[in-house]
Amino acid sequence: MADKYFGAVELGGTKTFVMVAKNRKEIIDRKIFPTSSPKQTILDITRYFQGVSSTKGISLAGIGVGSFGPLDLDTKSPTFGFITSTPKYAWPFTDLKGELQSELQTPIFIDTDVNASAYGEYNSLVDKNIESFVYITIGTGIGGGFIINGKILHGLLHPEFGHIRIPHNLRKDPFPGSCPYHQDCFEGLASGPALEKRWHTDPKNLPEDHMAWELESEYIAYALSNLIVTISPEKIILGGGVVHQKHLFPKIYTKVQQILNKYIKCVLLEDQIHALITPPILGDDSGIMGALELAIDNIR
Amino acid sequence: MADKYFGAVELGGTKTFVMVAKNRKEIIDRKIFPTSSPKQTILDITRYFQGVSSTKGISLAGIGVGSFGPLDLDTKSPTFGFITSTPKYAWPFTDLKGELQSELQTPIFIDTDVNASAYGEYNSLVDKNIESFVYITIGTGIGGGFIINGKILHGLLHPEFGHIRIPHNLRKDPFPGSCPYHQDCFEGLASGPALEKRWHTDPKNLPEDHMAWELESEYIAYALSNLIVTISPEKIILGGGVVHQKHLFPKIYTKVQQILNKYIKCVLLEDQIHALITPPILGDDSGIMGALELAIDNIR
Repeated sequence: MADKYFGAVELGGTKTFVMVAKNRKEIIDRKIFPTSSPKQTILDITRYFQGVSSTKGISLAGIGVGSFGPLDLDTKSPTFGFITSTPKYAWPFTDLKGELQSELQTPIFIDTDVNASAYGEYNSLVDKNIESFVYITIGTGIGGGFIINGKILHGLLHPEFGHIRIPHNLRKDPFPGSCPYHQDCFEGLASGPALEKRWHTDPKNLPEDHMAWELESEYIAYALSNLIVTISPEKIILGGGVVHQKHLFPKIYTKVQQILNKYIKCVLLEDQIHALITPPILGDDSGIMGALELAIDNIR
Repeated sequence: MADKYFGAVELGGTKTFVMVAKNRKEIIDRKIFPTSSPKQTILDITRYFQGVSSTKGISLAGIGVGSFGPLDLDTKSPTFGFITSTPKYAWPFTDLKGELQSELQTPIFIDTDVNASAYGEYNSLVDKNIESFVYITIGTGIGGGFIINGKILHGLLHPEFGHIRIPHNLRKDPFPGSCPYHQDCFEGLASGPALEKRWHTDPKNLPEDHMAWELESEYIAYALSNLIVTISPEKIILGGGVVHQKHLFPKIYTKVQQILNKYIKCVLLEDQIHALITPPILGDDSGIMGALELAIDNIR
């Protein structure tokens, strides 16, 4: 049997990652370029894959795509594979899957950026024998990707975990929240832009002992505690720009335990919470590796 | 092939339901008796199944059990199938599965009461082709059972959805909450006992236009909205004593839509929310029918 090659795309709001690989260990080529207009970006992606294919004399069996959204992922919908009502200029109702597929003449497997990241991280686990796996990203936005019994969960649409409501102590934190839909939902209180708006500076400038991080870890801990009592995850990966601040992790551990208050009796929560809630294994490659896995798994 | 017969048990804090059936349509016998001590209750269950088996001249291929908890459902644990640290007198660390199995010499399939109810309701759906299904019970306690891709979700332990944190407006509702672990978690604010403690009367006595129900529907709506953005359920069944007050449903629909504020664009949420969030199809039989399905599915 001839070797199979796969493509991967991580389409972000500002940057696009592209990659060609035989499998997760054998990366043939990778590149990163700015995300511009839909037309130009789709052209850039197309030319990249055509270029690598002709230079290396290979053809791609399929391409996995993790994209910013909202995406229509309902296979029965006439706009399946479209980026839908995004606020990003010129991008609303872009037929991402359809256009890539017709330009490249190879199957395209598309999912949200956060689901792709979740899938990349899940597939990096040594022990994949877990029912309930979650990847949370806390950055410009907040999102969650859920892998249940090895499959990405979509449900009705796709999870929008950033928008859960958590307790907001207005006495301690009078900042009203930055979400245009819900004001003080989790994303409205704890995303990068919320931090910047509340403290009038790039969060990177806030020292480790600033009360910003006490509040931030409290909000993250409320969200994770809700997640823990809701779907009882066996692994929670916490990624995204905001949690590049590694000092947040011990603060989050302490607060999750305080919030749950020994209600859930479980060694992993009580004594090994650092193994339950961890930074991404793949660092900034969760999304592109997950996109690759999407292609590999769907072709197999 | 000879006909197969199955047993079902719903072990509640005050009552125990037992049943023998060929399948969900052909019920051979059913009975209900008070839950007493562990020894007596296990004896009552055992005698019931032995009695029906000898009267009808049949033997049981397996018995499904939905039980109050907490239960140890980790198949690798030495206390798998035990009721563990329950506050219920005499019941802590009862080997429910083990004792029934050794008395009745037939396989016992055990899960939580709320998971059994979820499974019963899921199996009553005409269209089971959904990824994400939830059963929530709001009564003496609050709990959630999750069926993802047709399988009951356990994860690390089992979900304890009653204990999520939601916004608590102390100005509007100075009641501090009744949960001994978390005070004003969802269960602490919205369970039957919380209602009774806040309003100093059995909630059944509160008229439909009492502000108790405005608050109650708001708390339920916060919890359901969190659920919707977390796992994007395609069906949410809302059961339990408190929501026997059917006038709560329209109030909950309005408030869920207000809370989500058109963020999630989806016909089922925007125009058909009565089809997304519904009372149980099986009424008070969700649990016992789910226990039956547990036995049938595991034997098949």
